[in-house]
Amino acid sequence: MDDLVERFLRGERRALSRVITRVENATPEGREYVRQLFPHSGKAHIIGITGGAGSGKSTLTGALAAEYRKRGKTVGIVAVDPSSPFTQGAILGDRIRMQDLALDEGVYMRSMASRGALGGLAPTIDDVVAVMDAFGFDYVLIETVGAGQDEVEIAGTALTTILVNNPGTGDDIQAMKAGIIEIADVLVVNKADHPGADVLVSQLQALLSLAPPGSRRPEIVKTTAVRGEGLDKLADAIEQHRQWLESSGTIDQCRNDDARHQVLSIARAILLERIRAATPEADLQALVERVASRDLDPHTAAEELAAAVSS
Amino acid sequence: MDDLVERFLRGERRALSRVITRVENATPEGREYVRQLFPHSGKAHIIGITGGAGSGKSTLTGALAAEYRKRGKTVGIVAVDPSSPFTQGAILGDRIRMQDLALDEGVYMRSMASRGALGGLAPTIDDVVAVMDAFGFDYVLIETVGAGQDEVEIAGTALTTILVNNPGTGDDIQAMKAGIIEIADVLVVNKADHPGADVLVSQLQALLSLAPPGSRRPEIVKTTAVRGEGLDKLADAIEQHRQWLESSGTIDQCRNDDARHQVLSIARAILLERIRAATPEADLQALVERVASRDLDPHTAAEELAAAVSS
Repeated sequence: MDDLVERFLRGERRALSRVITRVENATPEGREYVRQLFPHSGKAHIIGITGGAGSGKSTLTGALAAEYRKRGKTVGIVAVDPSSPFTQGAILGDRIRMQDLALDEGVYMRSMASRGALGGLAPTIDDVVAVMDAFGFDYVLIETVGAGQDEVEIAGTALTTILVNNPGTGDDIQAMKAGIIEIADVLVVNKADHPGADVLVSQLQALLSLAPPGSRRPEIVKTTAVRGEGLDKLADAIEQHRQWLESSGTIDQCRNDDARHQVLSIARAILLERIRAATPEADLQALVERVASRDLDPHTAAEELAAAVSS
Repeated sequence: MDDLVERFLRGERRALSRVITRVENATPEGREYVRQLFPHSGKAHIIGITGGAGSGKSTLTGALAAEYRKRGKTVGIVAVDPSSPFTQGAILGDRIRMQDLALDEGVYMRSMASRGALGGLAPTIDDVVAVMDAFGFDYVLIETVGAGQDEVEIAGTALTTILVNNPGTGDDIQAMKAGIIEIADVLVVNKADHPGADVLVSQLQALLSLAPPGSRRPEIVKTTAVRGEGLDKLADAIEQHRQWLESSGTIDQCRNDDARHQVLSIARAILLERIRAATPEADLQALVERVASRDLDPHTAAEELAAAVSS
């Protein structure tokens, strides 16, 4: 293990890949790597890129990485995909667009499954981000598919969260409804060459005008990621947010909130593992069947399980 | 409490509302109501309605409820919205469409927040569904906003999961990528009067042809919910799925899986509460700050917390 850590810290990409694989599998060995590498993290700027289906997030993520490369910065990318054997083809197809970046030593990309064992993101996504951070990338981009709980969790890990919107068939208003706009630090109107882009910008401005007074207004940036347009302005908007985080002291609060969330989330996973270890599968199954047949309510059953590891 | 339970079991809507409010707040009193009412649940057919932003899920949910009313059935609706003070207006606006249903004694609707304390759906959504089931509704519809983890969890609770697609700007393919198609029991192409509806049906058929042999193929139904078209076919497709669940014995497996998920999820929440109770806030904050400053890794910190309640 020490040899792999040493090669990792010297900046060998193959060592990075091997460490991430171990961390992803959430083995005790993987956790030991996180333990050793975690002190080297905390320097990268972590950016979450999120938005509805079809908003062009993948393309935007690639284009933003290319913009950072132009600026001489290195970039790690974690693409969080719902784990689906059924749709893996489509996901891989999408990744082909990233291929020219893949040949660049200054960019590293990893796809990850999003489904945790019992809801929420697997704690290992935070670990993979920490490992990429420790490797020394200037930026780590987390791209998520979908619009819902995942985004809210990503927003915890990211220092700057970008919400990607696009002028579509009324989806814009729907996306606002989804309640994730208040987690956005920068709003992107992608596919800005499509009709309706300016209308969407106006709608977003109107929506932001309803924000509580004193809160920071996210900047709205128009991009056409597929043609590489607007990425300079987006990178600038991210820098401004980063500077605001630091000058306002908000960054410490962000790091604290993220650490609290991570620690509690892992502690919960540990306790769940202990429940599973303390209760033989046959006993668990018997309890579950009593609930399924309405003979026992789920709260009483859960208390029985919890009592097996703690009281 | 006994009086409220009695009025609930007599079918008083005001008693239902009051019980749900208590259950939603996840108080010990609320859990006691679930304990008392849970044995009366298990009779309703639970239907999850999910899909991307802008797919017209709310309208479809209302239209499906109206179809069931035509068939002489009663309907409970749980609309799961991301909790957002910022966007509540939009959500309320949407609910206005449900108003004609709201005057109907055979339909009961409740909006709920989707954000749990630490990711995943709050366990209380299952409890609210169980309470509606116990009240005696023939159908309980769970409508979710977004596309991601939430849907996967809803699919656990629902016996029949409906995925709503609509012919849009390439969003169709993106929605498939989101990996939720394999949780769908019925596929709806809503806004079927829009151009591209038939293309989308063909794309979905092609995608379904990739499903593993022997697995049940979800039926594809075209609807124009806003004009009430296709709802009869949708209700029929749901009945067919329900009959298949029963004749194949799959329904017992569904109820077991759901019970297992619920019980483990509640047990995890109980243990998290015990962690918070066992660790003074100042100690937790000190631990969190060490993680935020990279002095301690999150796994070691989490193990310290877990050790306070169990070893």
